[in-house]
Amino acid sequence: MTEVNDRDRAVFEAGIKLGALYHQFVGTPISIETVDDLSRTIEQSVILQPYVRSVSVSIDREMVGKKLNPRYKYCELEGRMLNVSLQIRYKNTIASAELAHDEELDYPLMSVKKIEEM
Amino acid sequence: MTEVNDRDRAVFEAGIKLGALYHQFVGTPISIETVDDLSRTIEQSVILQPYVRSVSVSIDREMVGKKLNPRYKYCELEGRMLNVSLQIRYKNTIASAELAHDEELDYPLMSVKKIEEM
Amino acid sequence: MTEVNDRDRAVFEAGIKLGALYHQFVGTPISIETVDDLSRTIEQSVILQPYVRSVSVSIDREMVGKKLNPRYKYCELEGRMLNVSLQIRYKNTIASAELAHDEELDYPLMSVKKIEEM
Amino acid sequence: MTEVNDRDRAVFEAGIKLGALYHQFVGTPISIETVDDLSRTIEQSVILQPYVRSVSVSIDREMVGKKLNPRYKYCELEGRMLNVSLQIRYKNTIASAELAHDEELDYPLMSVKKIEEM
Repeated sequence: MTEVNDRDRAVFEAGIKLGALYHQFVGTPISIETVDDLSRTIEQSVILQPYVRSVSVSIDREMVGKKLNPRYKYCELEGRMLNVSLQIRYKNTIASAELAHDEELDYPLMSVKKIEEM
Repeated sequence: MTEVNDRDRAVFEAGIKLGALYHQFVGTPISIETVDDLSRTIEQSVILQPYVRSVSVSIDREMVGKKLNPRYKYCELEGRMLNVSLQIRYKNTIASAELAHDEELDYPLMSVKKIEEM
Repeated sequence: MTEVNDRDRAVFEAGIKLGALYHQFVGTPISIETVDDLSRTIEQSVILQPYVRSVSVSIDREMVGKKLNPRYKYCELEGRMLNVSLQIRYKNTIASAELAHDEELDYPLMSVKKIEEM
Repeated sequence: MTEVNDRDRAVFEAGIKLGALYHQFVGTPISIETVDDLSRTIEQSVILQPYVRSVSVSIDREMVGKKLNPRYKYCELEGRMLNVSLQIRYKNTIASAELAHDEELDYPLMSVKKIEEM
């Protein structure tokens, strides 16, 4: 058993932010026309939270296009449509993480990409 | 027992839209700076849905200001911060409904305001 | 323009409840083993709300079975998996409404089924 | 810059699970009578997810009691009512984390409590 360090905290916070935005916004009605605006709104809601250094959100237009209801011309945001990359800074550690659709697993996979200790 | 008519449908759709947006967006991290953008995003998500003729969303800045966490300078969207008015058109009936904070009940009250049959 | 009556209110409340539960619970991780428990929990959250006389929720096991991630053996609750029927009583009016998957539209359709005025 | 290791992944997954359950379930209508059932349902939704070894959820009855709407006798689940502890196992690392109300900050604080490398 070892003590919790700054690196652990940076990585933990990255996980929190991805899990949170996913379950906050999945289900939101969207169309091709609203994906950019919703992406900005998600970014703004993430950047407010503690230790977030940067965040970039995009929503897969092609998937949205395929999922549009033929009659009503909108669909709901699904986890697999989301591409998110973010950086958490906790003291001298920067953790970079992302959410991206894993095609092989057909799963919205969250992963730590990089850890920098300064 | 009577048949379901256009008026029923208009009013029913108004209820759906208010219940839906409430439980979709409550919990979103916000600050004074992001209330306008989030309001527009909620409007956009509502206007996409069937039978919505118009929608207007505002978030109570004063309540947000009071709820900001002193250390982290953000809070979460609560139902009582939301003011929404919308119009549903189903065939020749227009139903106007709203969500507003009822101070006496301290409750985010949804109500039908007006029904026009043309 | 006509006055809002008890029937309008009953139908409106039915819409609120369906829209609300949909956007509250869609996204919840589920498996075949947990669908019954989650259905009861959704029912309990609905019956607490004003004017609800009864509610019955079921989740389509076959759809859940097909959506289970092959590696992780769970999926997320989707609107099209939900079957809900509920009754609202407002004074002397009972409105029955439901949420069910419309196969033709491939859409989770909410509809008023019956209105009884006593 | 250093490579992402098993410890990072365990801690990251712990963050994901806490952020996810928070934003999935906050807003759910509850009363004193339903807190136990909802706690079990949240646990079941967490234990399904990858790498979760154990999870325990409780909801603060006293806070629920204070928040009950006087007329309608229910309230909504808030983050500050939630107490969660969970263990993630990633290969040979076990990370224990929790969500608990921090009274000083009046904030639902998520933290890593312990990391065991076997």
